[in-house]
Amino acid sequence: MSTSRNIKAATGQTLECKGWEQEAVLRMLSNNLDPAVAEKPEELVVYGGIGKAARNWEAFDAIVSVLKRLENDETLLIQSGKPVGVFRTHPAAPRVLLSNSVLVPKWADWPHFHELDKKGLMMYGQMTAGSWIYIGSQGILQGTYETFASLAEKHFDGSLKGTITLTAGLGGMGGAQPLAVTMNGGVVIAVEVDQERIAKRLSSGYCDRQAASLKEALHWAEEAKQEGEALSIACLGHAEDIHKQIIAQGFPIDIVTDQTSAHDPLNGYIPTDLSISDADELRKQNPELYVEKASYSMAEHVRTMLKFQKHGSIVFDYGNNLRQVAYDAGVNEAFDYPGFVPAYIRPLFCEGKGPFRWAALSGDPEDIYRTDQLVRDLFPDQDPLLRWIDKAQKKIKFQGLPSRICWLGYGERVKMGLGINELVRKGELKAPVVIGRDHLDCGSVASPNRETEAMKDGSDAVGDWAVLNALINTAAGGSWVSFHHGGGVGMGYSLHAGMVAVADGTDLAEERLKRVLTTDPGMGIMRHADAGYEKAEQEARRHNLDIPMLGRDKHDG
Amino acid sequence: MSTSRNIKAATGQTLECKGWEQEAVLRMLSNNLDPAVAEKPEELVVYGGIGKAARNWEAFDAIVSVLKRLENDETLLIQSGKPVGVFRTHPAAPRVLLSNSVLVPKWADWPHFHELDKKGLMMYGQMTAGSWIYIGSQGILQGTYETFASLAEKHFDGSLKGTITLTAGLGGMGGAQPLAVTMNGGVVIAVEVDQERIAKRLSSGYCDRQAASLKEALHWAEEAKQEGEALSIACLGHAEDIHKQIIAQGFPIDIVTDQTSAHDPLNGYIPTDLSISDADELRKQNPELYVEKASYSMAEHVRTMLKFQKHGSIVFDYGNNLRQVAYDAGVNEAFDYPGFVPAYIRPLFCEGKGPFRWAALSGDPEDIYRTDQLVRDLFPDQDPLLRWIDKAQKKIKFQGLPSRICWLGYGERVKMGLGINELVRKGELKAPVVIGRDHLDCGSVASPNRETEAMKDGSDAVGDWAVLNALINTAAGGSWVSFHHGGGVGMGYSLHAGMVAVADGTDLAEERLKRVLTTDPGMGIMRHADAGYEKAEQEARRHNLDIPMLGRDKHDG
Ligand SMILES: NC(=O)c1ccc[n+]([C@@H]2O[C@H](COP(=O)([O-])OP(=O)(O)OC[C@H]3O[C@@H](n4cnc5c(N)ncnc54)[C@H](O)[C@@H]3O)[C@@H](O)[C@H]2O)c1
Ligand SMILES: NC(=O)c1ccc[n+]([C@@H]2O[C@H](COP(=O)([O-])OP(=O)(O)OC[C@H]3O[C@@H](n4cnc5c(N)ncnc54)[C@H](O)[C@@H]3O)[C@@H](O)[C@H]2O)c1
Repeated sequence: MSTSRNIKAATGQTLECKGWEQEAVLRMLSNNLDPAVAEKPEELVVYGGIGKAARNWEAFDAIVSVLKRLENDETLLIQSGKPVGVFRTHPAAPRVLLSNSVLVPKWADWPHFHELDKKGLMMYGQMTAGSWIYIGSQGILQGTYETFASLAEKHFDGSLKGTITLTAGLGGMGGAQPLAVTMNGGVVIAVEVDQERIAKRLSSGYCDRQAASLKEALHWAEEAKQEGEALSIACLGHAEDIHKQIIAQGFPIDIVTDQTSAHDPLNGYIPTDLSISDADELRKQNPELYVEKASYSMAEHVRTMLKFQKHGSIVFDYGNNLRQVAYDAGVNEAFDYPGFVPAYIRPLFCEGKGPFRWAALSGDPEDIYRTDQLVRDLFPDQDPLLRWIDKAQKKIKFQGLPSRICWLGYGERVKMGLGINELVRKGELKAPVVIGRDHLDCGSVASPNRETEAMKDGSDAVGDWAVLNALINTAAGGSWVSFHHGGGVGMGYSLHAGMVAVADGTDLAEERLKRVLTTDPGMGIMRHADAGYEKAEQEARRHNLDIPMLGRDKHDG
Repeated sequence: MSTSRNIKAATGQTLECKGWEQEAVLRMLSNNLDPAVAEKPEELVVYGGIGKAARNWEAFDAIVSVLKRLENDETLLIQSGKPVGVFRTHPAAPRVLLSNSVLVPKWADWPHFHELDKKGLMMYGQMTAGSWIYIGSQGILQGTYETFASLAEKHFDGSLKGTITLTAGLGGMGGAQPLAVTMNGGVVIAVEVDQERIAKRLSSGYCDRQAASLKEALHWAEEAKQEGEALSIACLGHAEDIHKQIIAQGFPIDIVTDQTSAHDPLNGYIPTDLSISDADELRKQNPELYVEKASYSMAEHVRTMLKFQKHGSIVFDYGNNLRQVAYDAGVNEAFDYPGFVPAYIRPLFCEGKGPFRWAALSGDPEDIYRTDQLVRDLFPDQDPLLRWIDKAQKKIKFQGLPSRICWLGYGERVKMGLGINELVRKGELKAPVVIGRDHLDCGSVASPNRETEAMKDGSDAVGDWAVLNALINTAAGGSWVSFHHGGGVGMGYSLHAGMVAVADGTDLAEERLKRVLTTDPGMGIMRHADAGYEKAEQEARRHNLDIPMLGRDKHDG
């Protein structure tokens, strides 16, 4: 098994495959493993603990070789990162269908997963790792930006100026936090146990500086806050430990959250009393003890966050399942602070809004700047969106293939997708563009501790919606469609679907984009209208969505 | 809510819908609720405990009205028996996509399901109840016939002549057991607690007679065995109680199995010390106590079956999760007797064989007889298959729309499907035919206590395969495609997918049938080849299936 690969997506107009769709898959798969994009490319790990792009290097090679020979009316099946079959379908069908990490519920936990993983029968797909539409930290940056913007709107008159946020975890997703906070004008202290991760965020410009000590971090933070400056500060250490020290010193924090990899108590979270290398050792020697220690640290971590809440900080969970682990370890009040979705994101979901993203297969940043302009042209009245596009263009260094993300709603996505397809058709872009999104979207996920936490009708755990999302997007003609279990909250806690479509400027692409960029966010409105959210019901009516029983039942049994 | 409906599928050539596909859906949904087909149509229950066709009557009415207006390029989404949306897709896409009873794994158990069910947010889809391709007892009869035939082959030189089988449960599925055993030449005693169910099986001809007492049953059985006659005997009582009496008397039994509704300890299994009406009462008054009593009875039931095994009987589980309930109630050896799939069915799965079925939308039995002839024409050398067709034609009374089932493998299904489409095209059949199958099939289900019990590579719990089956059949063009959780083994224990395609004699139907009747059984061969079954690997090579890594890895990690 090679460990010294250096994978990069091909760019430009020359095809290695028999069509642009297959080529797009190949480039995006490669892009997911680009060292500039992936967290641990040598282990095929893209982000989020052990979220992988392929089961192993043999499987990766086999996928690549199938993609190169795949016909325009064939469909490749991927089972947890391994290519298991190719069937003849038709040109408007997806070129690839993926199912990653799905386990029969009774066996859907970490021990069973690890057993199967060890046997080479599974891999962890996270959300966009195994579905080949991860685009580096920018992907989460917009979501994180939206979250903090929404928080600022709700609690601080629209800006984080003069506030201090405390968080931890500067990994693939968490690394977006410092920039998201400073883009909203605030100060942030981000605790991270791994010096390499800190270095990565500093060099990518996502984090401003690293403090040599907690004392220095607090000093800088205080100063910036006083002067109303935006500043992000990394601080090396274990979250629980640093948080406790801050509490002990009575230093005032406005906002507390966390993005350590708590969803995976064996391969993710580092227990407070272990260095990274000791953690590596113990993980191999005694996994049970490791999980016990990690759970204990997480319980203490949550207890400290609850203390911050009691002292008046705004505390929210950032989707890593930290509360659940703490709860299982005996912290009964773990769920006393809310998840970020019910707190800040659900109103957007009711409009079919979610993390729309696209990447330029040409490899040319100019193609993305041209699409930035398209956003400005199509949505001239949407100030926050335009502000984001401007900031993103200035602040974001592309990782791997140039790409852009912005949250768009029902109607907007199809407009943008067709607009991009037109630009490709007219030759204003140098090559086709892939259009996709995170699995964390309005109508694609069932995750009672995150995206579907505290649904109005109590339907948090209903997984049918995620299944229907994958099925309808397959029918509507996504280029590749995926269904995953686990994701950001870990084994047992979520089901979710992904979709990517290729805009290659053809009529067929136009048809398919028109359909799939309607079905996909449409599911979001339907799901929330069905749950009784008035906003979603209004949106459904406004857009003339066909919801047969809308308004006819009120879920009272 | 109406409880006095009398639903029957329309027949003949006149359409109530805008195309034959939609019409087929409407007729099959109605057929599922035909009193001649469904177990409790007034509660929308089709079979298998609480397996329903629609969430409630309002939802049913809404589905019907959508189907009547659904265009030929639209797709209706069903979420646990409720119509939640309609989207524009395209003519080769499915007309309906269904997801039933899917829960996020951590919440995928009976208490959560019942809570959601009570709130009106879910329904139990079983396998073919919520996916509208149940065809009455014949559906399971062929599977049961195959199982007993395979058992006879393995243990008794191909016939059950001179053997006595003891089983219980004469419900929707279990009611096929008496006829399946007598078709194989054997004697069977079937214990059933509900006199109405017994009456139903007697009147349908599935069971020969009812004994007035256990004594009489044993007497008749002994007599028939001696004379080498086939005979099925119903015996009123609780399985555990009757079984214990038989053991106590030292009466020799050759084969023991069970099809009581053990998968559902609240709405299914009747505890030994309760009459049916007392059970109904207790279920409402004190569901916890009910489940406790049912679990206790099931534990004793399994202990008795284990005793039979020790005394030399061939004992196997018949897919109702009885062993699991007993195991959870403390019977550590519950899994000492095997499930029917590893014991008798898996070799068939390796050839892509499974419960292929079709129904005549004309309503005319002659259409089915014409397709029986087609089977004879297409597969002239397959003696067991032809024997089945002959017996079925003679013995089986149609319930609802005339239909036929026979187990066909990869290659055979597409041959048969295209043959049927040709007959429709040429006007040799009076109307189109729907072609589907049970979810219990070679490549569509993950169910570690049943279809994927004891897989060679240990991949029993991997659910990706069921997801991929639903996705590829959606891409390939099934007319309706479904994905369910639960089914025959209950909440938490299985994930499975269904597919139905309409043969209406058009070119488009031909194309779609060609694709989908290839992908569907093809998945079965792939799944078993991937698990390392040589038979499946051979079949894959023989049929030139495109399996990228076939033979390249041996799952040693
Ligand atoms: N909010 C969202 O939208 C969202 C989306 C996806 C995933 N997530 C979840 O957020 C979490 C972070 O994701 P990621 O991709 O950044 O994971 P990651 O594994 O790439 O990064 C986690 C980081 O946490 C650090 N860490 C671990 N233990 C620590 C400790 N005790 N103290 C300080 N730092 C510690 C690790 O060194 C690592 O850098 C995951 O649980 C992920 O599932 C959130
Ligand atoms: N083998 C298979 O292929 C297969 C397929 C699907 C389902 N199943 C499972 O088989 C079981 C039977 O299915 P069904 O559709 O016939 O269910 P059903 O609910 O229609 O029938 C179950 C029958 O068992 C009877 N019963 C309950 N408790 C009893 C007791 N203590 N003693 C005697 N009889 C008792 C009931 O009165 C009822 O008639 C279910 O658990 C189902 O999930 C098996």
